[in-house]
Amino acid sequence: MAENNYNSFKYFIIRFPAEHQYVAHVEINRPDKMNAFFEAMWIELGQVFDRLSQDPSVRAIVLSGAGEKAFTAGLDVTAASQGLLSADGDQAVDPARKAAHLRRHIVSFQDCITAVERCEKPVIVAMHGFSLGLAVDLSTAADVRVCTRDTKFAVKEVDIGLAADIGTLSRLPKVVGSFGWAKEVALTARIFGAEEALRVGFVNRVFESKEAAVQGALEMAALMATKSPVAVQGTKEIMNYSRDRSVQDGLRYTAVWNSAMLQTKDVSAALLSGLKKRTPTFEKL
Amino acid sequence: MAENNYNSFKYFIIRFPAEHQYVAHVEINRPDKMNAFFEAMWIELGQVFDRLSQDPSVRAIVLSGAGEKAFTAGLDVTAASQGLLSADGDQAVDPARKAAHLRRHIVSFQDCITAVERCEKPVIVAMHGFSLGLAVDLSTAADVRVCTRDTKFAVKEVDIGLAADIGTLSRLPKVVGSFGWAKEVALTARIFGAEEALRVGFVNRVFESKEAAVQGALEMAALMATKSPVAVQGTKEIMNYSRDRSVQDGLRYTAVWNSAMLQTKDVSAALLSGLKKRTPTFEKL
Amino acid sequence: MAENNYNSFKYFIIRFPAEHQYVAHVEINRPDKMNAFFEAMWIELGQVFDRLSQDPSVRAIVLSGAGEKAFTAGLDVTAASQGLLSADGDQAVDPARKAAHLRRHIVSFQDCITAVERCEKPVIVAMHGFSLGLAVDLSTAADVRVCTRDTKFAVKEVDIGLAADIGTLSRLPKVVGSFGWAKEVALTARIFGAEEALRVGFVNRVFESKEAAVQGALEMAALMATKSPVAVQGTKEIMNYSRDRSVQDGLRYTAVWNSAMLQTKDVSAALLSGLKKRTPTFEKL
Amino acid sequence: MAENNYNSFKYFIIRFPAEHQYVAHVEINRPDKMNAFFEAMWIELGQVFDRLSQDPSVRAIVLSGAGEKAFTAGLDVTAASQGLLSADGDQAVDPARKAAHLRRHIVSFQDCITAVERCEKPVIVAMHGFSLGLAVDLSTAADVRVCTRDTKFAVKEVDIGLAADIGTLSRLPKVVGSFGWAKEVALTARIFGAEEALRVGFVNRVFESKEAAVQGALEMAALMATKSPVAVQGTKEIMNYSRDRSVQDGLRYTAVWNSAMLQTKDVSAALLSGLKKRTPTFEKL
Amino acid sequence: MAENNYNSFKYFIIRFPAEHQYVAHVEINRPDKMNAFFEAMWIELGQVFDRLSQDPSVRAIVLSGAGEKAFTAGLDVTAASQGLLSADGDQAVDPARKAAHLRRHIVSFQDCITAVERCEKPVIVAMHGFSLGLAVDLSTAADVRVCTRDTKFAVKEVDIGLAADIGTLSRLPKVVGSFGWAKEVALTARIFGAEEALRVGFVNRVFESKEAAVQGALEMAALMATKSPVAVQGTKEIMNYSRDRSVQDGLRYTAVWNSAMLQTKDVSAALLSGLKKRTPTFEKL
Amino acid sequence: MAENNYNSFKYFIIRFPAEHQYVAHVEINRPDKMNAFFEAMWIELGQVFDRLSQDPSVRAIVLSGAGEKAFTAGLDVTAASQGLLSADGDQAVDPARKAAHLRRHIVSFQDCITAVERCEKPVIVAMHGFSLGLAVDLSTAADVRVCTRDTKFAVKEVDIGLAADIGTLSRLPKVVGSFGWAKEVALTARIFGAEEALRVGFVNRVFESKEAAVQGALEMAALMATKSPVAVQGTKEIMNYSRDRSVQDGLRYTAVWNSAMLQTKDVSAALLSGLKKRTPTFEKL
Repeated sequence: MAENNYNSFKYFIIRFPAEHQYVAHVEINRPDKMNAFFEAMWIELGQVFDRLSQDPSVRAIVLSGAGEKAFTAGLDVTAASQGLLSADGDQAVDPARKAAHLRRHIVSFQDCITAVERCEKPVIVAMHGFSLGLAVDLSTAADVRVCTRDTKFAVKEVDIGLAADIGTLSRLPKVVGSFGWAKEVALTARIFGAEEALRVGFVNRVFESKEAAVQGALEMAALMATKSPVAVQGTKEIMNYSRDRSVQDGLRYTAVWNSAMLQTKDVSAALLSGLKKRTPTFEKL
Repeated sequence: MAENNYNSFKYFIIRFPAEHQYVAHVEINRPDKMNAFFEAMWIELGQVFDRLSQDPSVRAIVLSGAGEKAFTAGLDVTAASQGLLSADGDQAVDPARKAAHLRRHIVSFQDCITAVERCEKPVIVAMHGFSLGLAVDLSTAADVRVCTRDTKFAVKEVDIGLAADIGTLSRLPKVVGSFGWAKEVALTARIFGAEEALRVGFVNRVFESKEAAVQGALEMAALMATKSPVAVQGTKEIMNYSRDRSVQDGLRYTAVWNSAMLQTKDVSAALLSGLKKRTPTFEKL
Repeated sequence: MAENNYNSFKYFIIRFPAEHQYVAHVEINRPDKMNAFFEAMWIELGQVFDRLSQDPSVRAIVLSGAGEKAFTAGLDVTAASQGLLSADGDQAVDPARKAAHLRRHIVSFQDCITAVERCEKPVIVAMHGFSLGLAVDLSTAADVRVCTRDTKFAVKEVDIGLAADIGTLSRLPKVVGSFGWAKEVALTARIFGAEEALRVGFVNRVFESKEAAVQGALEMAALMATKSPVAVQGTKEIMNYSRDRSVQDGLRYTAVWNSAMLQTKDVSAALLSGLKKRTPTFEKL
Repeated sequence: MAENNYNSFKYFIIRFPAEHQYVAHVEINRPDKMNAFFEAMWIELGQVFDRLSQDPSVRAIVLSGAGEKAFTAGLDVTAASQGLLSADGDQAVDPARKAAHLRRHIVSFQDCITAVERCEKPVIVAMHGFSLGLAVDLSTAADVRVCTRDTKFAVKEVDIGLAADIGTLSRLPKVVGSFGWAKEVALTARIFGAEEALRVGFVNRVFESKEAAVQGALEMAALMATKSPVAVQGTKEIMNYSRDRSVQDGLRYTAVWNSAMLQTKDVSAALLSGLKKRTPTFEKL
Repeated sequence: MAENNYNSFKYFIIRFPAEHQYVAHVEINRPDKMNAFFEAMWIELGQVFDRLSQDPSVRAIVLSGAGEKAFTAGLDVTAASQGLLSADGDQAVDPARKAAHLRRHIVSFQDCITAVERCEKPVIVAMHGFSLGLAVDLSTAADVRVCTRDTKFAVKEVDIGLAADIGTLSRLPKVVGSFGWAKEVALTARIFGAEEALRVGFVNRVFESKEAAVQGALEMAALMATKSPVAVQGTKEIMNYSRDRSVQDGLRYTAVWNSAMLQTKDVSAALLSGLKKRTPTFEKL
Repeated sequence: MAENNYNSFKYFIIRFPAEHQYVAHVEINRPDKMNAFFEAMWIELGQVFDRLSQDPSVRAIVLSGAGEKAFTAGLDVTAASQGLLSADGDQAVDPARKAAHLRRHIVSFQDCITAVERCEKPVIVAMHGFSLGLAVDLSTAADVRVCTRDTKFAVKEVDIGLAADIGTLSRLPKVVGSFGWAKEVALTARIFGAEEALRVGFVNRVFESKEAAVQGALEMAALMATKSPVAVQGTKEIMNYSRDRSVQDGLRYTAVWNSAMLQTKDVSAALLSGLKKRTPTFEKL
């Protein structure tokens, strides 16, 4: 339906599956390079999610990677070594000025990935194959993660001489249930698989194939999309807000938020549908 | 023993099992309505826990629900749709003024549930059957959760068109080990069972029957009640304080707290009993 | 190599295993008393880790306990009951002045244990046998925990009449995935074993014997020590910083940190070695 | 108008001056003891302000003290030395248990004074004569302070052997413009006068007589009461919220708050009245 | 010099005064409407400051208003009443959905004004004439404020039925030295003048005429622009960071920031120039 | 009395004036170099204050500078340019490794100055003559500042190419009443005098001569030293704690702190002395 607005993107395909109303499916589309990211791609990623965030015909989003080999192999190291990571090349440059430019660059890179987190609609990531480095940064900014049995994850950054700076180190320990595990995988860069990811709470479900994983993610998204968008979007917002604050501050924010949101017609629509055992419909938001 | 002070409550039965010294057992008592809550009940809940909090003859508390069907089915939707959730009815009312009243109402509702968290004694919740919506809000305010094998949990709120606002969204992710799992159940409202609850760390133990669950909870409470109340109440306070703050702030608060509490006679009583292999007794607190 | 600087310590043996370059192995060395701690020991512990923190020939550290019986049985209660815990003895002393002295004492004790957390290099704790009380405080200040199958853990403090004040109550819930579990073990002081510790995410791995556990820890440390020390130390710092703050603050700090650190030559060294399939070497830090 | 609901209070007179619509005037009424406070009084104070907070016929409040001598001389030391401050008397009592009781007592005392801060309507304090100890705690919980030329202020607590614990130490430095000045007066307990209070920003205005001060406060309150109560109460709430948080968090909370509040009819009423040069009237809140 | 890049703006004139190297002068240019703001203007304002922030030929910025009458009279109420503030018009719209749109709108408006605060270069605001409502929001986002003797300030928002939501309520109390004064002017919307603004610390200096004020601001900016841009931009960043955090967090951030910045060549350039009594020159940043 | 313990310091003279019981007077003693600081001096400063902090015969401290010319001219730039600030010299060094060393160095320097803030006793700084750069960092870590009429202050750091990193940028805006003023003096490095310092709340009092300033500071210290040390030290601790946190957190910490401290005998001693109009004496602390 809303599809025609999203044709301008070069590295992402955005589809609106007919069988799943209000669901958008975003695909990273550079399969010949294992969906490795370079700067133009993360800028586009930020634009895709900022647009979906405000599109009233979208209520839930699935993100996956094109091709058989990888969700994404992470940063395109060849490209990076000529850009961001070329920083150590030039002795003549003042290290302070170089630092100022690097900081701007990192902040802007982080901001593109954070677009997934600040997107007002829930985002489910379906991963398969190589899901390295940036794959972890990106997926921890999403709300739910699922994967295929053969997924190979790694917090790869220390292997290229740097501390992960696009979100993994801040978000991963808040996503999983063991700080010691998060430290081990970040400090060793070792590969871990789907079963381990499930056990530590990194992914919610493991599927047998990429097709099944994407299908499963779309169905979960579709389920979310049948609920009141006022309720769903408020739930995402309040959970992200509360993650970073005390319970008391979370409660206070929730009370103010819901002082407007409880005035929605969706509550009576939902209650009435509940009584009548039929599916409610909700206005766009 | 202290039992006679608690007879005035209408929706809660408070017992002091003879075999478990210093343990109080609170039962939600509206079994014909699956223990569904309306306003008078949560106000009473707050009063029950505020009173137990300061009762020197109580050192640990178990909370369970009367009847076979449910710990609690959550909010009494019929009652709510005439009260709090009727908000969207009246077009003539100024939305800002309506919001002000809703906010006061939510804050006061939250405050009643938070009475479980601010209660100075540990609270163990034993759940069974339907444990929906408010059941989750309420149980996350407690210290330990156990359940029966047949418990059916759900963060039900999005199904009635609203973001859960009585604590689940702020507390659930801090209670379990997977933020993605917490988001999935909050965004889909799907039912989950005891095994899943155990796996994600939401409950500590699963029992075969309601009787066994309540019995198990009472025994755990009884064990806590044999320890120094100075030590136990300090442990609850410091853990709740630290959950919401940096490790550094937690350590500083602990040091100030214990600067008074280490002066207790309970330490020498406990050490001496340890040497003599007998059970220490501690003064009331 | 750097070994000779560490001979002056009385209660800790520091070794530099020849087969694991840049790895230090610290052993608590009071096996006849089950490695129980008294004041001189925790002061020395703080000194050991503060020195290792700045030693450029050290890139990762393993901490274990000497003897077969215990990693550490915790506080030496006999010694403590004549020192810190003798506080309740003297009626003539002003409780406020006593509190002032206790507070200074606790703060200084906490500070010694926190030396493990503020150590710039990753610390892996290998536990076996009795690992009680202070064992848990100490190990939660480390980055990764492993243990043997027969390890007996307990948050023992309530059994001696006090709330644990050297870090467990602030750090344990941030290390594991279930707040309810952390509360149960802290409020009951019950023993728990290796399997349970693994399931809740307290330890990363369980080994069959003490020898295997120490060996496993050394290998994990050795793996970390092969990576760029700029990357590894930044990873530890940023993860500890982010644990205590919002994601947004974590990202901002990361950007400033990496604005200097991305200028390292280690990045090009790592990238080049990656291309040439050889092991990179990195300058000391 | 709403006057008849407030006759039950014993230590406070609540008036609704006919010439100042929507303004309540609260008077501390124990002039023969220089309005010194004992426990029953601060409990009543909390009740007065909690009730005014929700009374729709009240939009702004003035607080002053009866009699010529004092706004309030602070804590009634004679009463306190038999209650709260008698704590050091009894050697037989366990210092830890005594601390637990003292803490509850202090928290409940603080909560009564904080009722002034959490009151949804602006509170203006008009002080005269002796305004010592608790007078400062109390007045810093209000929104605006004015005084007479002859007012004698002191943060008196160190003179009776204790650190002020009812709010001055937390609030005074956030109210005035010099942290060094706040420390000096708190560490020396020296008297300071109206001119100094004005210069450091503690009071907004100095009047020649008590009558003029109360009159001036009532006029300021009356001015606030002519504005939209939606706007005024939101302004107080957001300013108090932001005082304790980062600018960014303040802005986010403001946006959520106003997302409901901008829907008020008061905006069009105010705009229309502005155009027509007449005084708008606003619905009760 | 860099002037030609800034010609595309419609409501702002950007000049680069020849006599003040590295200084940009931004003028709000809608004098016939007393520089009142509507949406297109604040969007442009955000763009102007985001661009100046990264322009290496700019080291300090002055902001003033065109015309004799006003720096800015604030929000263009006529325009707003058809846009943002028209919210209360339509009874048919769901208040929750309306709230969602209002919130997005406010957040985006706030973000434009915050561009002044996040601008990496110091911003000095020179105000004259009417400086109402948005004038205060805008100026508190700047680093330094000066004004003319005849400036008329007011936190005007309560007069149009709303709590100021674009920054004043969060920033003004952190800018001045008296919380009570800030509350009074925000709760009464009364006009205050230059002398009062100087006394409370809102403005740094008062000038006799608009010409003198702009000239004084330009000279202050020029002085800042002679210093090392590494030092000046770091100073602004650290002061804004520290305003919102504990001293301890401020110190930690400063240490990381300066670990890169002290490597600048500007330090030796400045030291050498100091010795040789000549003016240092610094590379662009 | 306690004097003989403090003879070992090289750059500081510590006196215990006979006429002011419990007062220590610390003098920076490098008058021939205008008391400019190099590394050995700030390390010694930290040691002096850490020792005074725990010395029971000290209840208040005055800090001043020897000689007629300067309290301190700040950093000894010649020494620094061979140490800390020589950082930009060596092109061969890896900027990341250089940054790691600089950070450690800055943190350790900050920590020495923070010794003044964490000192448990109040510290009054008496400044005269040149009080530049580090003078401001140092004095903002104290509790109260006074000066002579001829004092010349400057936040000098931008003049040597760096952002002040030893505390001024984090502490100065929390000490004075105008954020704009603090930014102006930090961004321009301009000199300001005693009158301006008094007006903005940076100093509490201005004296005509150095002798009078030191005398005035000693008298203020002596006054503080006559009060209960339990009360005075608690007041300093709670005010510093609350500066960095919300009012609510400040109140909670205060309640725990005073739950021990109100048990002091000083309260009854003070009350009794008040009744009997005599000076109380208090036990050492």
